Amino acid sequence: MANLVRFGVSLEKELLHRFDACLRQKNYNCRSEGIRDLIRESLVKQEWLEGNEVAGTITIIYDHHRRELVNKLTDIQHDFGSSIISTQHIHLDHHNCLEIIAVKGRPQVAQKLADMLKAVKGVKHTTLSMSSTGKCI
Amino acid sequence: MANLVRFGVSLEKELLHRFDACLRQKNYNCRSEGIRDLIRESLVKQEWLEGNEVAGTITIIYDHHRRELVNKLTDIQHDFGSSIISTQHIHLDHHNCLEIIAVKGRPQVAQKLADMLKAVKGVKHTTLSMSSTGKCI
Amino acid sequence: MANLVRFGVSLEKELLHRFDACLRQKNYNCRSEGIRDLIRESLVKQEWLEGNEVAGTITIIYDHHRRELVNKLTDIQHDFGSSIISTQHIHLDHHNCLEIIAVKGRPQVAQKLADMLKAVKGVKHTTLSMSSTGKCI
Amino acid sequence: MANLVRFGVSLEKELLHRFDACLRQKNYNCRSEGIRDLIRESLVKQEWLEGNEVAGTITIIYDHHRRELVNKLTDIQHDFGSSIISTQHIHLDHHNCLEIIAVKGRPQVAQKLADMLKAVKGVKHTTLSMSSTGKCI
Repeated sequence: MANLVRFGVSLEKELLHRFDACLRQKNYNCRSEGIRDLIRESLVKQEWLEGNEVAGTITIIYDHHRRELVNKLTDIQHDFGSSIISTQHIHLDHHNCLEIIAVKGRPQVAQKLADMLKAVKGVKHTTLSMSSTGKCI
Repeated sequence: MANLVRFGVSLEKELLHRFDACLRQKNYNCRSEGIRDLIRESLVKQEWLEGNEVAGTITIIYDHHRRELVNKLTDIQHDFGSSIISTQHIHLDHHNCLEIIAVKGRPQVAQKLADMLKAVKGVKHTTLSMSSTGKCI
Repeated sequence: MANLVRFGVSLEKELLHRFDACLRQKNYNCRSEGIRDLIRESLVKQEWLEGNEVAGTITIIYDHHRRELVNKLTDIQHDFGSSIISTQHIHLDHHNCLEIIAVKGRPQVAQKLADMLKAVKGVKHTTLSMSSTGKCI
Repeated sequence: MANLVRFGVSLEKELLHRFDACLRQKNYNCRSEGIRDLIRESLVKQEWLEGNEVAGTITIIYDHHRRELVNKLTDIQHDFGSSIISTQHIHLDHHNCLEIIAVKGRPQVAQKLADMLKAVKGVKHTTLSMSSTGKCI
């Protein structure tokens, strides 16, 4: 399907040997796939730096018993509606919720949304994972 | 609901002034909440280091047209069934899928699952975000 | 010497208990010092984001037997002379050198210098550690 | 000098095009060098995970006017004498010192030393940069 090209890389023998061992340990069964993954990771970092369109995941942990918390989270998510693809809600236990928000858009907007959610009283922890729309990798 | 205590922190005046400015910029309207968030983040880092039960999110980007890819991803997820809470699948475009897997368990198991998914040919990018079950923060 | 102020933080009892245990493990014998460190770390992150004057350390590993390598490293360092405070050179073994460059200036300039050094053939590894001039923390 | 080998990597044409553009932006003038750097970075991460011998840099910022601070830092450094290669001290301004400690040994020991220095009252900021002895990369 994709338009494949092939190129050569020269490398110290010992270094290649160690890289292969490292790939085996990580369940790769193909060296090219390992190299492609390193290349793609370097490109995704660049996408986030350059401010192009990215995708990512915001994960928040909160206690849903906190007054007004759920309303505030909903309000904020509506304000960022055009950047949010979908939301997954998980009941961890009687108190704690895990909410995962898939986002797409400019990195600054994703970061702003994560910051807004994090600052809400009752939100215990927030992470933003930096992924990609897959178009350029 | 929670059993609150209050304690004092002494700090250079200038440092407090700068911290308050930083909190305002990040949408906090309460200094205690800002401090609590810093404390919780330090505890979540510790939970992941110590190998206790954690929660987290694995985000993968892949091209669903790759032969056998979806079957392999499903097989791996079944092998880790007891650590996976739920999965969210998003069609980014004609080729690219974003899949978000909510996990709970020991950090090493979450990392192993992320490594296994990452090594599958056709998976373009994988991130593991380190969150918490919320019980200890 | 510094102008100290004191303020109160309210917190769940259990959370404070866990934070104190975590501080003991990290050799702190004063809770305020632990909180101050968290606050300062959040401010240093902000300094690097905002592009104000920062300090930091660039650590490079290289094989000094590579032709022209030392000359190229010296040339680059001279081009960034106004950002470099000092350099420490360590002979790790017959081949490998560890060079540590203390830098001060805008974060973008420190990053650019690190990128330039990293791209030189024979430089095996480069890290940029993000620290502070200490003035604002 | 080193024992070079050459191997082929197959890759989507578009992905290679983007990687090349990214390398040019980062001052690389050779694609193999870019790939080697990605490989070496992945191996250094592995060295730190596996607990083998590593090298690194601890950077601390402190106010030398704080009573007893310099003595405490010296005591700690003597306790870790066998892991410390050398120390560089820089006067940032009338109050603030930047001290850079080059370390070699097991990752856990380097981390412990960084933690001990960080917990000393008057030390404002501590970073540990993860580098390599260069032997295995």
